[in-house]
Amino acid sequence: MHQYHTPKKSWINIDSNSDFSLANLPYGVFSIPGTNPRVGVAVGQHILDLAALFNLGFFADLGLDKNPFASHNLNEFMALGRPVWTKTRQGLLNLLDAQNPELSQKTEIHPQVLIPQADAQMLMPVQVPNYTDFYSSQEHATNVGKMFRPDGEPLLPNWKHIPVGYHGRASSILVSGTPIRRPWGQLLPPDANTPVFAPCRLLDFELEMAFVVGKPNPLGDPISVNHAEDHMFGMVIFNDWSARDIQKWEYVPLGPFLAKNFASSISPWVVTLDALQPFRCPAPQQDLEPLPYLKESDRHTFDINLSVSILPQNGEEGQVCQSNFKYLYWTMAQQLAHHTVNGCNTQVGDMYASGTISGKEQSSFGSMLELSWKGSRKVTLPGGQERTFIQDGDTVIMRAFALKDGLRIGFGEVRSIVLPAHPKNA
Amino acid sequence: MHQYHTPKKSWINIDSNSDFSLANLPYGVFSIPGTNPRVGVAVGQHILDLAALFNLGFFADLGLDKNPFASHNLNEFMALGRPVWTKTRQGLLNLLDAQNPELSQKTEIHPQVLIPQADAQMLMPVQVPNYTDFYSSQEHATNVGKMFRPDGEPLLPNWKHIPVGYHGRASSILVSGTPIRRPWGQLLPPDANTPVFAPCRLLDFELEMAFVVGKPNPLGDPISVNHAEDHMFGMVIFNDWSARDIQKWEYVPLGPFLAKNFASSISPWVVTLDALQPFRCPAPQQDLEPLPYLKESDRHTFDINLSVSILPQNGEEGQVCQSNFKYLYWTMAQQLAHHTVNGCNTQVGDMYASGTISGKEQSSFGSMLELSWKGSRKVTLPGGQERTFIQDGDTVIMRAFALKDGLRIGFGEVRSIVLPAHPKNA
Repeated sequence: MHQYHTPKKSWINIDSNSDFSLANLPYGVFSIPGTNPRVGVAVGQHILDLAALFNLGFFADLGLDKNPFASHNLNEFMALGRPVWTKTRQGLLNLLDAQNPELSQKTEIHPQVLIPQADAQMLMPVQVPNYTDFYSSQEHATNVGKMFRPDGEPLLPNWKHIPVGYHGRASSILVSGTPIRRPWGQLLPPDANTPVFAPCRLLDFELEMAFVVGKPNPLGDPISVNHAEDHMFGMVIFNDWSARDIQKWEYVPLGPFLAKNFASSISPWVVTLDALQPFRCPAPQQDLEPLPYLKESDRHTFDINLSVSILPQNGEEGQVCQSNFKYLYWTMAQQLAHHTVNGCNTQVGDMYASGTISGKEQSSFGSMLELSWKGSRKVTLPGGQERTFIQDGDTVIMRAFALKDGLRIGFGEVRSIVLPAHPKNA
Repeated sequence: MHQYHTPKKSWINIDSNSDFSLANLPYGVFSIPGTNPRVGVAVGQHILDLAALFNLGFFADLGLDKNPFASHNLNEFMALGRPVWTKTRQGLLNLLDAQNPELSQKTEIHPQVLIPQADAQMLMPVQVPNYTDFYSSQEHATNVGKMFRPDGEPLLPNWKHIPVGYHGRASSILVSGTPIRRPWGQLLPPDANTPVFAPCRLLDFELEMAFVVGKPNPLGDPISVNHAEDHMFGMVIFNDWSARDIQKWEYVPLGPFLAKNFASSISPWVVTLDALQPFRCPAPQQDLEPLPYLKESDRHTFDINLSVSILPQNGEEGQVCQSNFKYLYWTMAQQLAHHTVNGCNTQVGDMYASGTISGKEQSSFGSMLELSWKGSRKVTLPGGQERTFIQDGDTVIMRAFALKDGLRIGFGEVRSIVLPAHPKNA
């Protein structure tokens, strides 16, 4: 990875506990009423409008004819490749340096290029051609195994050999703030042997993170585990909404389908792997030697704090889970190496989610399925309300940040309210 | 569906047993060396170049400023909606009418607009945002159940209630003619309990067809079973390549993944639902009443003859299977209604494959897994060669056509040679 020169201080006021510190510079797509969507970077409480900066000649050193930031998504920028990512990041760090008058002194253009986040609407940052969901938390897979196969080994025989995953639905990945409708579907009521068609009764979140591919591989050309991170542009928080009762009835033998594809929600700011470098940390030791194509010469992950809160309608927000990305048994590099080892090609904007991130403690379980142990114990919220699964009117909020030696890099949040199922005839 | 006026005869010579009769007019994307890919229609042994015709003013009645046929795929044309599809089809039928001098007499432009298929390369006709594979043949699902769960009921309890399906990989759908590499992957050798990393030993085809969505539905707005066909633009032959040994080891609990996503192959010509109307026929009676959202007021399917042949390297082509699309238990309308009943949105170009289409007779089984009954019986080819699964150098050819009262509408073929696995270190 490139070594960046990061200035000590910016001329933009950034709160010391802001997710969007000078060393973060996550990319997103925003609009303000009456204007086109475009690419910006979050800095403190502002958005730096990269499309406007480009038009004003600030990115001349990129040598580009066309403005890659005047776009509805990040794909065009990502497709330009790492040399452009690196130049852009270093250019932004320089522009934001308190010592550099280049932009700071041009106060007349500040209203044009510096937008308060409160005035902007965040949009889907990425056009996602392919989406895969992994199942990489040993604790989560073990919990699920204990609940659904109480008489067998909790982990299936392949789990410690394969970063198990499956293809998900790209079309219904939604940006934070988009309301989620409780889905209708086929359920098998307890003790029945014929399904009914009804609104999902066991609606759940799954606390996940996802990485976005910026450098694709062509068909037939696997990505090696030791070069996998070169292909990753950045990461987002990922809420893999799950209808547990629909899932239970439909998922044999080909996996989850309608239980998942009604919606997944992501945070709007893509935090780059460049920004996350200071938070590299060891990944859990693997007690079974993986096959050579999954063996990393420098095995590591990232120390990212995660939390989930529920805000009931007319109620008080309460945190129900605290976890960490570093708990995952399989790393992102292993996931991508496995996914492509058969020659499968990736595309710019592809999204690869981690699977539910649970830790060892009950308080770190990343889904209501686990927190309520299949509905058998109630989770109490601050106002005294109790939950086993998600109710209509609940807002689910996931947050993520990395913190080390006073340096904070945050993801912001993914926040979605759950609306009642559409009234209609079954 | 619109009633078209189809002329009796064209001024273009069309062989009476051509797949590409005057009543077919399937859409594809082609290029000839040194020119851009563009949209054409197959007529006999020729391609009518729609991009060139548009530029010459032949589609003025569509009222379009931009040429939707000067495109690398059909998505732009499909997105214009059914009124434009209908006008285009009727316009083409008129232009091709032997009685109509409009184009037939302008012989000076024929070289420009009428390309011999032999001179053109066919490309991926559609940019596929989302791909789903169903499992809708009762005979196939029963065969698989008998082989893999010999002691249980062959069909799982949900199968007659749900058109079972799963999300597949869109990025690796390839057009006919693209060679397929035998994939590497994790396999569990017989009697072993630790996997090895090796080239797939049990490579298989799956005989399927797929429909392409031309009219999408927005998130939250299900497509009703009785309006589902309005959303379908056309159909292709679909070879769902499968690595049986990789599949067996990886697929629990989340479904097939690397066993499928190295490649799927499609025929290059998209045959419209308009063209297929004469071949509507009853769909199999369902012995379990489906839930109301899957109940069709006019249940039907299409009578389409299917076949698979294997051409060994330096050998003679031999047909190994003959089946029919009409055997499927779940119809395309039921598949699409089910897929969207939870609010899942579709997008223009989405591809929905049927699952392996097997019939009752052994000769109609749509995969080598079934034809060789898990490798236990050999399939003999004309030159005397025997197969249980697909070998390196084999070309697999799938063909499809509908035939009724002398009217023939064909899909052409999907043809792919299998190359040896990449030599590399495991």
